[in-house]
Amino acid sequence: MFKIFPIENSICAPKGFFSDGVNAGLKPEALDLCFVRSQEPCDTVAVFTSNRFQAAPIIDAKEKLKNKIGGILINSKNANAMTGQEGLDNIDKILKEFPFENCLMSSTGVIGQQLPVEKILEGIKKFDLNGKNSDNAAKAIMTTDAFKKEIALKVVTDKGEFRIGAMAKGAGMIAPSLATMLCFVTTDAKVEKAELQEQLETCLDGSFNAISVDGDMSTNDSIFIMANGKANGYEKEAFREALQQVLHHLALQIAKDGEGAKKLVAFDVKNAKSYEEAKKVAKNLSNSLLVKTALFGEDPNWGRIASTIGAAQVQCKEEDLKISIGSIVIYDGKGVMTSEVEEKAYKVLQNQEFKITCDLGTGSDSYTAYGCDLGYEYVKINAEYRT
Amino acid sequence: MFKIFPIENSICAPKGFFSDGVNAGLKPEALDLCFVRSQEPCDTVAVFTSNRFQAAPIIDAKEKLKNKIGGILINSKNANAMTGQEGLDNIDKILKEFPFENCLMSSTGVIGQQLPVEKILEGIKKFDLNGKNSDNAAKAIMTTDAFKKEIALKVVTDKGEFRIGAMAKGAGMIAPSLATMLCFVTTDAKVEKAELQEQLETCLDGSFNAISVDGDMSTNDSIFIMANGKANGYEKEAFREALQQVLHHLALQIAKDGEGAKKLVAFDVKNAKSYEEAKKVAKNLSNSLLVKTALFGEDPNWGRIASTIGAAQVQCKEEDLKISIGSIVIYDGKGVMTSEVEEKAYKVLQNQEFKITCDLGTGSDSYTAYGCDLGYEYVKINAEYRT
Repeated sequence: MFKIFPIENSICAPKGFFSDGVNAGLKPEALDLCFVRSQEPCDTVAVFTSNRFQAAPIIDAKEKLKNKIGGILINSKNANAMTGQEGLDNIDKILKEFPFENCLMSSTGVIGQQLPVEKILEGIKKFDLNGKNSDNAAKAIMTTDAFKKEIALKVVTDKGEFRIGAMAKGAGMIAPSLATMLCFVTTDAKVEKAELQEQLETCLDGSFNAISVDGDMSTNDSIFIMANGKANGYEKEAFREALQQVLHHLALQIAKDGEGAKKLVAFDVKNAKSYEEAKKVAKNLSNSLLVKTALFGEDPNWGRIASTIGAAQVQCKEEDLKISIGSIVIYDGKGVMTSEVEEKAYKVLQNQEFKITCDLGTGSDSYTAYGCDLGYEYVKINAEYRT
Repeated sequence: MFKIFPIENSICAPKGFFSDGVNAGLKPEALDLCFVRSQEPCDTVAVFTSNRFQAAPIIDAKEKLKNKIGGILINSKNANAMTGQEGLDNIDKILKEFPFENCLMSSTGVIGQQLPVEKILEGIKKFDLNGKNSDNAAKAIMTTDAFKKEIALKVVTDKGEFRIGAMAKGAGMIAPSLATMLCFVTTDAKVEKAELQEQLETCLDGSFNAISVDGDMSTNDSIFIMANGKANGYEKEAFREALQQVLHHLALQIAKDGEGAKKLVAFDVKNAKSYEEAKKVAKNLSNSLLVKTALFGEDPNWGRIASTIGAAQVQCKEEDLKISIGSIVIYDGKGVMTSEVEEKAYKVLQNQEFKITCDLGTGSDSYTAYGCDLGYEYVKINAEYRT
C-alpha cells in the first residue's frame, strides 16, 4: 500500500539537495550554468548514450561514479564533445573550483568547441551554493527547448515516506534527430546503489526509450539519479511506480517539445507477434518523416501508416491490420475510407494530443511510442542552429 | 574492348520497343497513363520492394514474370496498394483490354484507393500502340517529381552492338521517406534471362541501393528490365558497365529531385573496417535529419556529421576521424576549426553538388551514398500531398 502525490520544487524537493542556476555568458543573457548537489556525497547511478563518440563529461563521469558523488555541474550551449584530452582537462580545471567533493560535469550544446573555462569559473562564483533554486536550474539546461521540464513526487508507504524530484532537457529528441537529452533525478529514498541502477534501467523502457531509438543517440545523452537516503523510507514497488511516473512525464514533455512540434502523438501498437515487433512498429511510426509531415498537415493518410508498418518487416497481413485515429477506425483490413470517416478522423487530427492505434492482429503483445509532427519550424530551428 | 555512347529516345532507343503516354483523367490535365512493350513477348526480370504490404501489381507481376512479357502498362496517382482482391481483379479487367499478350501493370500514387478502371480503359483507347513516344511515357510516370528522368546508351563491342534505354520516377525517395521509386529498362541485347537477373542485382548496390535504405521501401518500388534480343549483340562486361551507368544516372537524378531539394550530396566514406560499416555510415549520413537540415542551412556543422557517425556503432576513434567538405578538411582528429576554414567550407556548401568525405581511419573499405538537403519545400510537399 502506497500513495503518490505531486509536490513542488523538482530536484530540490527531496531532503538534502541544493541547486542554483546563473548566466555565465555562454548564452548572451539567459541562464546557462547550474548545479545540483547533495548535502553529503551520495550514491549516484547513470545511463549514458551508446554513441561511439562519448562527450568528455561522460568519459569523466564513468570513472567517478564508482564513488559517492557530491554534485553535478551542468552547462548548456557547449557539449564538450569531440574535444579530446583538452576537453577532459578543462573539466578538471573547472571542478577544482567547485567547492564540493567528487563532482561531475554534464554538458549540452554545440559539438567540437572547447569549454569557455574562464566564463564558467566566473559563473561558479555567482552561485548560491546552499540555494534551493530548482527553477533556475531547469531553465539553465535548456537549449532549443521551448519550455522547462520538471516534476517532483512524494511517496507515502508503510515503510516511511520519500521524495523523487527531476528535471530534463531535450527537444526534437525524436530519433533520428540526435539532439541531446539530459535528465537529472534526485531522491531522499534509502535505496541500495545496485537496486537504484536496476530501477533506473527498468523504468527507461516505457519512458525515454519510447521516444528515441536505442543506439541512435547524441554524444551527450545522460540520465543520472542521486540518492542520499535522507528520508529513511523506501519500498521497492512504490519507488518503481513513482520513478516510472517521473520519467514518463519528462519523456512526454520532451516529445511534446519536438522542435517546432504542435502535436503529441501516442503510437499504440497492439496484438503484435512479439514485444520486439510491437516496439519496432511503434518506433518506426513515430520516426517516419512521411507520417510526421502528414500529421503536421492534419491528413488522415492511413496509407503512409500502413506502408511504414510494412517496411518494418514484422508479421502482419493486409487483411488483419486495423488502424484507428483516436476512436475513429480508418482501415479495417479493407481498403476504402468514406468521406464521412475521413472528416471524423480529420477532426481528431486537429487536436494537440491524440492516439493512433495499429492492431496487427497476429499476436497479443503491445508497445506505445511517442512522437510529434514535423513542420516548417523544425527545419528553421535546425537549419539555423548555429547562426 | 567496348565503347559506350549516349543516344536519344530512352526506352524506345533499343530495337523493337514501343511506348506512349496519355492523360486518362487520374491527374486533372497532365499525362498519367503509359505503356512500354516489346514487338514480341520477351524475357523480363525485376526486383521488387521488400515491404510486407506489396501492392497488387507486384503480387500480380511476380506470377507472370515466369513467362515472357508483352508489355507493362503504368499509371501514376494511384498505387493500387492495400486494395485486396478487388485490386487484383481490377488489374485483370484492365489488362484484358490492353491488346498484347501476358502484360503487367505498375502503379504509383496514393495508397488504399481502388483503380479508376473505366478511366484507365478509356485511356488505353487513346494510345498510339505502335508509337515511339518515350518522352510522353517518362512524363506520365511522374508524381511529385520535378523533372522526368530518362537515359539511353548504345554499346559497341567486338561481339556486335546493343542498346539500353531506361526511365524512372521518384523524388524524396531518400529513406526513411518511403516515396515510391519505379524504373523501367529496355534492351535489345541478346542476354539469357538468368544472367539478366544477375546483372540487375549486381548493378543495384552502387545505384538505387545507394539512395535508399534496403528494406525500408514503399509498397510499390519496382525495377524491370525487358530484353528482346533484337540486336543480337551482347558482351557481359560491356553490358554490366552500361547498365551500371544507366542505373547510377537515374539514381542520382532521383536523389537530386528529393522533394524540394536544392543540393545533391555524395557521402563518401573511406578507410572503414569493412564494406558493411562504410555503407552503414554513408547511408546514416544521407538519411540524418540533422545533417540534411544543416546542408539546407549551408552550415559546416561537422559536429552533426561526427555524432551521426558515432551513432552508427561502427569502429572509429575520435582521434582517427577526418571529415572534409569538398576539398576542405574541417575535422582532422582534433576539435577546432578556424574561421578561415569555416568560411571556405561554407563556400563549398553553397554549391548545388558537392562531396562530403569521412575517413574513418580503421581499415580500407569504402562506400558512397547519395542524399540531398531537406528544407521547407519538403514539408510543404508532404504535408499537403493529398490536398
